[in-house]
Amino acid sequence: MKNFKIALAQFSPHVGNLESNTQKMVEQASKAKQEHADLIIFPELSLIGYSAEDLLLRPSLKKRTKQAFEKLSHVKDIIMVFGFAHQTEDGQTFNSAAVMKDGQVLGVYNKQNLPNYGVFDEKRYFNAGNQHLIFEYAGHKFGVLICEDVWNLNTVQQLAKLNVDSILVLNSSPYEVGKPQHRVKTLQEVAKQLNINIVYNNQVGGQDDLIFDGSGFVINKNGDVALQAESYKEKVYYTTYQTEKACFESSEQHAPLETMAEIYQGLVVATRDYVQRSGFPGVILGLSGGIDSALTLAIAVDALGADKVQAVMMPYTYTAKISVEDAATQAKNLGVAFGIAEINQIVNSYQQTLFPFFGNAKADATEENLQARARGTLLMGLSNKFGNLVLSTGNKSELAVGYCTLYGDMVGGFAVLKDVYKTIVFELAKYRNSISEKPVIPERVITRPPSAELRADQKDQDSLPSYDVLDSILYAYIEEDQSQTDIIARGFDKAVVEKVIKLVDNNEYKRRQGVIGPRISSKAFGRERRYPIMNGWKAGI
Amino acid sequence: MKNFKIALAQFSPHVGNLESNTQKMVEQASKAKQEHADLIIFPELSLIGYSAEDLLLRPSLKKRTKQAFEKLSHVKDIIMVFGFAHQTEDGQTFNSAAVMKDGQVLGVYNKQNLPNYGVFDEKRYFNAGNQHLIFEYAGHKFGVLICEDVWNLNTVQQLAKLNVDSILVLNSSPYEVGKPQHRVKTLQEVAKQLNINIVYNNQVGGQDDLIFDGSGFVINKNGDVALQAESYKEKVYYTTYQTEKACFESSEQHAPLETMAEIYQGLVVATRDYVQRSGFPGVILGLSGGIDSALTLAIAVDALGADKVQAVMMPYTYTAKISVEDAATQAKNLGVAFGIAEINQIVNSYQQTLFPFFGNAKADATEENLQARARGTLLMGLSNKFGNLVLSTGNKSELAVGYCTLYGDMVGGFAVLKDVYKTIVFELAKYRNSISEKPVIPERVITRPPSAELRADQKDQDSLPSYDVLDSILYAYIEEDQSQTDIIARGFDKAVVEKVIKLVDNNEYKRRQGVIGPRISSKAFGRERRYPIMNGWKAGI
Repeated sequence: MKNFKIALAQFSPHVGNLESNTQKMVEQASKAKQEHADLIIFPELSLIGYSAEDLLLRPSLKKRTKQAFEKLSHVKDIIMVFGFAHQTEDGQTFNSAAVMKDGQVLGVYNKQNLPNYGVFDEKRYFNAGNQHLIFEYAGHKFGVLICEDVWNLNTVQQLAKLNVDSILVLNSSPYEVGKPQHRVKTLQEVAKQLNINIVYNNQVGGQDDLIFDGSGFVINKNGDVALQAESYKEKVYYTTYQTEKACFESSEQHAPLETMAEIYQGLVVATRDYVQRSGFPGVILGLSGGIDSALTLAIAVDALGADKVQAVMMPYTYTAKISVEDAATQAKNLGVAFGIAEINQIVNSYQQTLFPFFGNAKADATEENLQARARGTLLMGLSNKFGNLVLSTGNKSELAVGYCTLYGDMVGGFAVLKDVYKTIVFELAKYRNSISEKPVIPERVITRPPSAELRADQKDQDSLPSYDVLDSILYAYIEEDQSQTDIIARGFDKAVVEKVIKLVDNNEYKRRQGVIGPRISSKAFGRERRYPIMNGWKAGI
Repeated sequence: MKNFKIALAQFSPHVGNLESNTQKMVEQASKAKQEHADLIIFPELSLIGYSAEDLLLRPSLKKRTKQAFEKLSHVKDIIMVFGFAHQTEDGQTFNSAAVMKDGQVLGVYNKQNLPNYGVFDEKRYFNAGNQHLIFEYAGHKFGVLICEDVWNLNTVQQLAKLNVDSILVLNSSPYEVGKPQHRVKTLQEVAKQLNINIVYNNQVGGQDDLIFDGSGFVINKNGDVALQAESYKEKVYYTTYQTEKACFESSEQHAPLETMAEIYQGLVVATRDYVQRSGFPGVILGLSGGIDSALTLAIAVDALGADKVQAVMMPYTYTAKISVEDAATQAKNLGVAFGIAEINQIVNSYQQTLFPFFGNAKADATEENLQARARGTLLMGLSNKFGNLVLSTGNKSELAVGYCTLYGDMVGGFAVLKDVYKTIVFELAKYRNSISEKPVIPERVITRPPSAELRADQKDQDSLPSYDVLDSILYAYIEEDQSQTDIIARGFDKAVVEKVIKLVDNNEYKRRQGVIGPRISSKAFGRERRYPIMNGWKAGI
């Protein structure tokens, strides 16, 4: 029995790119070897990345996986534990972990618990394994589990009964608010209960709507946290097992982030990875003088740097003077390119063209949508001409009740605040101001009543309840899946609840055409909340 | 032993509306009783309709299902076999069939084979059953299966071994080209092989992107088809079991449709159900003078009637005179309201507004997109003002390679031809012309070379291979999941294949924001083909 060192590769894969992922794994393993690590653990499905979706069904996957194994087989003198899609001769596919040393595969573990709820569709791709894998190194007995396995107490108990000292857990566990700490706390209890060490390594980085926070850790059998990796950081972390003390130790002990920092940094990482991995030179967004676009701008700048961000203000008749001022101030505070493009002429040309059809029909939402769509088309024009990705600036509250215009303010390639309720938008804006010397978002933008400025003297609260109330109802209906009756029973006004729920149900068609954006909640619109558009379900029944 | 009569309710549910579905089931059962039927069979999950998606996770489902059972319990003197989501006390949910008579539940069958591939996500919602259900009536032994069960030969064999005379199969089997006949042929073999009668009843109607064709049938144990229902028709069909002959008989023997008729009618039903069940007064679409919009117009008129359809031609500098003429002719042929709205002024206003940003930058796709977006915004304006749903007119070939403009020609609430390759669009146009006395689509629209008319003398074939070649490559890549290497090996030009596949891969972001449209293929874009947008998979490897 000797001391040994484990490397946790908090790894950010490029989904689908087995070649570059494998190359990076080889580099990280070589680096770990220089640091005298005996073993390196990568995340779940590290070869192809998570979530590869139907790429897992492509016929050439087997060949690509074989090539990746070949490449990894040249790494010597370190045990590698990594994730891959394991296609067997009899046509089954498993979500698996391989233990490889000096080109030899010492064992393969097939994930036993396949999540097929929420954002997960693993039963679409994988068969479930039914056997544990154990291997020994330096007199120490290791078991291997993959993500969902470790949340199934029954599975962990079975493994623990095999006299395992430490469990290596390969994860691609998506972020949601509070989850980094929740994982640690839950597994501290498991470690103590089963008297077992847990090495938890997680994927990091953004992949479409999913944020992987990393936040890996090592827990000793007494429940102590031996290592806590930083959230959102791609890096190899190390922990040493001290044989005489019979526990892991590490100098890496990063305090968990406060909630707003945790969300904010997640949005930054998601935005950066989406823009950079999609190959865009930068981003462009419409600044309205309001808080959503202000916050989106700050996130974009923190993600990409001011030189990669372009902001455009597109005023119209109903745009307040202070909106233009505040937009200019934001752009200046953050040092981004800023332009102004009035939309009056465009809106007029639409109205004139439509006059033969509309006649003297009363103005309604149609005219408001024309303004929003003129802006959307201008942004897309600038994007098409110069190549910058359009960031959409809408928030979850708006998207929930359809308080947004399809092909208007909904245009874009990435909706940074898509899963962020308006009340949290305010918190995030205050948080962002709190971490720089000078506030980057003008105080007035945070304090003035929100308005879409699509007609004279319009305020969001003219047609919606206050955001505090709205978000509470939305949270109960969406995140908590509460019925209308139950929400009313909590003390909210009946008519308001009915109206809000009806809006949520009726606006599925808008959301279905909405752009992706990073998920931070436990019930994000998109792959996590799959509602039919034609839907005869009536909330009230 | 006496003769008995079975009613097959080829039923079109309103998804999510258990109340109205149950009401209609009661009415159909009463009607069947008047026709002296002894038993009526409804489709899979008939109470809530297929596919209810995450409505199946709503907490009030149990209460609603109970209310539906209560309502059905008042139906007397006929056995009802219907589908429901079966939530048990221990927290499991099954996709089940109930056998009910005179308010008594005689038995419940839980589906054993849960499809979780293609468009199906049943493992997200259901647990798998593991027991067969048999019941006897008039000395005849019935077994019950649900949809996927009947395609698992092992499951059917087990049931047959229990000395069952006839299997009642409840289905919500979505349409795809050729499937109606494929089902009959396959089950004829099963019936003969296992010496068993098969009563196959299927849901009918459109639900979002899924078309249910009905096409129910009864097969005797000798393989003869005793009943063949019409495709796409909501109706109760009857078959009588003749004890002395030991076989089913029926006067309903509808010949299967020819392929183009089968597709065309499917698109008509999908469009009608989407528009009517969503509560729109009618539809509006942009007529370009091209074949896609011409065909969409014909389908819309056949689905809803000419008085519910509005067409708008939106010419610009590059619009040929014959395009305007042909659009007008189509509208006249079909008797729909037709308007012309030139977009020159709008495009000019965009260009002037963007000039300070663009300067003298060379014209490129940006300017083409401005035209498309001007048209999209006009259509949406007319839709917003008068309430008609915008039908999107793009086809599958375009959508595959991104030869379409987000927020431009892609706008709308339903994309009728979304899953129809361009070569099939031509066939469908000819088919539609062949079934009316006078052609509704001018011959010239079918014969002239396709053009988006977004720049001078533009032809689709300037930037794409011929549609014959394009569609063959797309079919191999998408429907057949062939690799780039395999497609090139079929004899296609290497550079062309590489270009096409790259376009397909790179345009996932457009499709993800695309509107839903009816699925007719075995691999429709949308819930059936789930690709990541950030995607490092390179086809060439």
